[in-house]
Amino acid sequence: MFPEYDVIVVGGGHAGCEAAAAAANMGSKVLLITMNMQTIAQMSCNPAMGGVAKGQIVREIDALGGQSGIVSDRTMIQFRMLNRSKGPAMWSPRCQSDRMLFAQEWRQILESTPNVDFWQDTVTGVIVKEGRVGGVKTSLGIEIIAKAIVLTNGTFLNGLIHIGEKNFGGGRSGERAATGITEQLITLGFESGRMKTGTPPRVDGRSLDYTRMEEQPGDEEAGKFSYKNTPRLEKQRSCWITYTNEKVHEVLKTGFDKSPMFSGRIKGLGPRYCPSVEDKINRFADKDRHQIFVEPEGWNTVEVYVNGFSTSLPEDIQYRALKEIPGFENVRMFRPGYAIEYDYFPPTQLKLTLETHLIENLYFAGQINGTTGYEEAACQGLMAGINAHRKVKEENAFVLKRSEAYIGVLIDDLINKGTEEPYRMFTSRAEYRTLLRQDNADIRLTEKSHAIGLADDERLENVKRKISQTDELVQELMKIKVNPEDVNTQLEAYHTSLIRDRTSLWQLLKRPQLSMREIREMSPALVNWMDPLQEDAIEQAEVHVKYDSYIEKERLMVEKMTRMEDLAIISGFNYDKVPALSFEGREKLKKAKPQTIGQASRISGVSPSDISVLMIHLGR
Amino acid sequence: MFPEYDVIVVGGGHAGCEAAAAAANMGSKVLLITMNMQTIAQMSCNPAMGGVAKGQIVREIDALGGQSGIVSDRTMIQFRMLNRSKGPAMWSPRCQSDRMLFAQEWRQILESTPNVDFWQDTVTGVIVKEGRVGGVKTSLGIEIIAKAIVLTNGTFLNGLIHIGEKNFGGGRSGERAATGITEQLITLGFESGRMKTGTPPRVDGRSLDYTRMEEQPGDEEAGKFSYKNTPRLEKQRSCWITYTNEKVHEVLKTGFDKSPMFSGRIKGLGPRYCPSVEDKINRFADKDRHQIFVEPEGWNTVEVYVNGFSTSLPEDIQYRALKEIPGFENVRMFRPGYAIEYDYFPPTQLKLTLETHLIENLYFAGQINGTTGYEEAACQGLMAGINAHRKVKEENAFVLKRSEAYIGVLIDDLINKGTEEPYRMFTSRAEYRTLLRQDNADIRLTEKSHAIGLADDERLENVKRKISQTDELVQELMKIKVNPEDVNTQLEAYHTSLIRDRTSLWQLLKRPQLSMREIREMSPALVNWMDPLQEDAIEQAEVHVKYDSYIEKERLMVEKMTRMEDLAIISGFNYDKVPALSFEGREKLKKAKPQTIGQASRISGVSPSDISVLMIHLGR
Repeated sequence: MFPEYDVIVVGGGHAGCEAAAAAANMGSKVLLITMNMQTIAQMSCNPAMGGVAKGQIVREIDALGGQSGIVSDRTMIQFRMLNRSKGPAMWSPRCQSDRMLFAQEWRQILESTPNVDFWQDTVTGVIVKEGRVGGVKTSLGIEIIAKAIVLTNGTFLNGLIHIGEKNFGGGRSGERAATGITEQLITLGFESGRMKTGTPPRVDGRSLDYTRMEEQPGDEEAGKFSYKNTPRLEKQRSCWITYTNEKVHEVLKTGFDKSPMFSGRIKGLGPRYCPSVEDKINRFADKDRHQIFVEPEGWNTVEVYVNGFSTSLPEDIQYRALKEIPGFENVRMFRPGYAIEYDYFPPTQLKLTLETHLIENLYFAGQINGTTGYEEAACQGLMAGINAHRKVKEENAFVLKRSEAYIGVLIDDLINKGTEEPYRMFTSRAEYRTLLRQDNADIRLTEKSHAIGLADDERLENVKRKISQTDELVQELMKIKVNPEDVNTQLEAYHTSLIRDRTSLWQLLKRPQLSMREIREMSPALVNWMDPLQEDAIEQAEVHVKYDSYIEKERLMVEKMTRMEDLAIISGFNYDKVPALSFEGREKLKKAKPQTIGQASRISGVSPSDISVLMIHLGR
Repeated sequence: MFPEYDVIVVGGGHAGCEAAAAAANMGSKVLLITMNMQTIAQMSCNPAMGGVAKGQIVREIDALGGQSGIVSDRTMIQFRMLNRSKGPAMWSPRCQSDRMLFAQEWRQILESTPNVDFWQDTVTGVIVKEGRVGGVKTSLGIEIIAKAIVLTNGTFLNGLIHIGEKNFGGGRSGERAATGITEQLITLGFESGRMKTGTPPRVDGRSLDYTRMEEQPGDEEAGKFSYKNTPRLEKQRSCWITYTNEKVHEVLKTGFDKSPMFSGRIKGLGPRYCPSVEDKINRFADKDRHQIFVEPEGWNTVEVYVNGFSTSLPEDIQYRALKEIPGFENVRMFRPGYAIEYDYFPPTQLKLTLETHLIENLYFAGQINGTTGYEEAACQGLMAGINAHRKVKEENAFVLKRSEAYIGVLIDDLINKGTEEPYRMFTSRAEYRTLLRQDNADIRLTEKSHAIGLADDERLENVKRKISQTDELVQELMKIKVNPEDVNTQLEAYHTSLIRDRTSLWQLLKRPQLSMREIREMSPALVNWMDPLQEDAIEQAEVHVKYDSYIEKERLMVEKMTRMEDLAIISGFNYDKVPALSFEGREKLKKAKPQTIGQASRISGVSPSDISVLMIHLGR
């Protein structure tokens, strides 16, 4: 009934979609199995993509030839570049999405990917032969043969939804849970755990009073995620900001005795950095208000997502508390918020390719690995899809380093440190975040991806053009020099010190008060010269000129760390002889017996200062 | 948490959407409760609206101010007027729909209806106080108060999906079933039954060879359903026709021992006129092939609906049989076909308003009443919504007669005859089908609906304009006479007999060889005169001129039957004294003790000839 597939992807969320698209685009014969073809690429939680660190990940996915950036660009209703007032390492693209269009667009992309087949069914287990994956079994009793399997089950594995004291099985509100897989994987030797996440109520936008909220419009000029030629938003929809208050908190507290979290009914750990509103009240008892983002769910719908108000308190408490929020006095709820517990598999059971140690050619991606977030899921799906394909075709692993991509940081963290609470990406998790910018993901990654046959020629040509235009422009900025008499009036107007000698534009652009816009004003010659350049190269050149010392410093650090990475620790090394090691670090090192400093540095509990101590001791 | 509602509608399918929209548009405060807001107005079965008799129903819904016609017009991908070669009573509009857009459009319409609130939850029972409905209870343990309830549960009540020997609970493939309601209604004294329906597999359009099928394009000029100013399709997508064959049947037969239908595992009766392919093979053993309509699921999707191949045989049998169909040699399945059993409530428990006899202000609409088909469901929802609203506002029942609308026929059949298998509308069910045409639904119904505050002024003005333009045109056709020497050449060309005397265009238009197009050619004066007329009036006039004798005959019959309707049968009438009555008819009449001939005529088992006999005996 089915041909033999190279790769079967189980699950049609962000991870599953990227995995299927990547493997298929590289030439694998792929089957995507989903419980409901009508709900492929549903945004289960907020209608948005990107954000701090997450936006960088979407850019990386795109630079690698993944689809999330393209889908986001085609379906966004608002775009904002977050942190624009900070350095470019912090710039983070974020969009609000039309929830329905997003799912539709993904489905259309998958349908128009030649090597992707679809099958609507529930996978109940994987077929394993001699330690290697052979296919999947489904609830219809079908066995489908494949060389590799990517499991992207999201919150569906034994999903249990909690609202107040009620709970019921389900993978999402209104949808079934998936059973069988966890149990089978445990019999195969896997260790599983339980996590928890949650979502806020959805309300009727017609019942809100926006005059009592702050408007948060999109950027004046909308940006986008993809390095490809995707459309740019002309008009945008605004979000709105309001706040909880003491009254809201009082009402919420009246439900605490019925909270599944506080009563201990929920065993799984929730996302620390995306806590429920009751968590926030509890943990930050001194704060008298919390921000609420009122996010529209699409172009035409009146449904609104109450970001910041995730909760599993009883629905009547949710309602009464909402009503105390300014602008929500007459709120009508559409769907209550809820918490969901689900099975995950501690990711220390995986290789850097996301293949499991236990079963060959079995890959895990997304929430099954203990992460939270669409972007985190999508990039894992992409990497699992790439590696499943390459394994099947007997090609080398495709692994990104921590210095190359947030994706590298994420997977390295998961595999080496594991996670006991839903793992979310932050810029602070990256050692080299000045290198891992949203503006240079293509420069960092597209050539690598092109080399393995994923990023297409157009992407490669574009990035080459961008690099060469950037270089030329930087050279030109060094070359063009201006005279004090020609520019000092302008410099004065921009509140920056005057020049005494002929000075290069390159020197001037380094000044924080001056951006490329002002530099152009000072040099008509430059404007003419720049005419054929594209905007991305101009931006890139500006970043390079302004931040080259920081970038260079991090680059050197990477080089140093790369050399150190392979610095051997002799087998049987006696850590007790190094008194300066922390107690925890020493214990972990003795247990893990790392072979190199690189490995040692990634052991959970081994601090950077332990590594310094160790390196000194090893004679560096 | 919730205000008190006038009407709560349970279920968001065709029936539920129409019920909610109608009650709200008339001024009721409405809450629509659905298990999943993401699946409102899902087309569970084929991606099409209308068809023979069903298309007339959609036109009637539209004429009454319902939304199904508007939604269909905005989301169709193909339109055909079926039976155009037959008389206008048989003309039946039908469209192929974009499944995703259809659901989206409905949701947007509901969202922009001011009095409709939404709540995502599962209703588990109705609250009854002193024989009257008081609200609903949900799976979250919430009680929501309302004056009237409309239940439109579709196939979700204890839904059980069968594929071969496997079965599992579910309201649709991939979705949960709803439990609790049936059980509670039974404790309240309701009688329930079990029905079955089914759906064919969905396949990958990319795997089909269309060169081996017959193309079925849309009409050259697409029509539409709504009398309002909805858009008309410019480009269309084609369907394709192919056939099963002996080989296909052989393969299917190999699965018969595993068929849930033939093994007796399925207890419910299925739709006789929409049988599964295994049923067709079984019942029509002499037919060596059955037609298959290959229907695209939307503008952009590759998913294809295999209309005519509904089946609950094991999925591998489905697959192997499909492969034997010309054009399907390399077919890839996306989702298997399946059968679904669900609870229904014999509709004899309802009043003509669709209110239950047992519980005041409780209404049932759609498949819960034992019907099948989107259109049948939608019109019941509309009527239940209208009547729930009017009951709450203490206004009279709104009931359509059999002579006024297919909707009247449908509800009258259900209430008086009940149904033991899924009830589908046919033109043959209507006694007065020459009156119940798709072209005059507005003339029949819009004024009535306007009078109760549903159809808006624009609709009323439009139908008045249409009626007066039609009348004027018919008068003008009678007035304008042509001379033999002016038109005989043309008449000869049209192969119709020549005229000898001055003859009116009205006379000529009656000829089957001549349509309005030819008549116009014969009279430039008419063309000028007609210039301000709209197309609908011209068509209407043509139908009137051509078919006025048939129409008039049926009109007289309606009048006669209306008089007869109230003809009393004296209490205690001795049916044994009427030997010419059929055995079954006599038994049913003795049991039912009808008070009028009208009532007698609607008793299941009492034939039209029984009624004639009875009328003669009663002295007419």
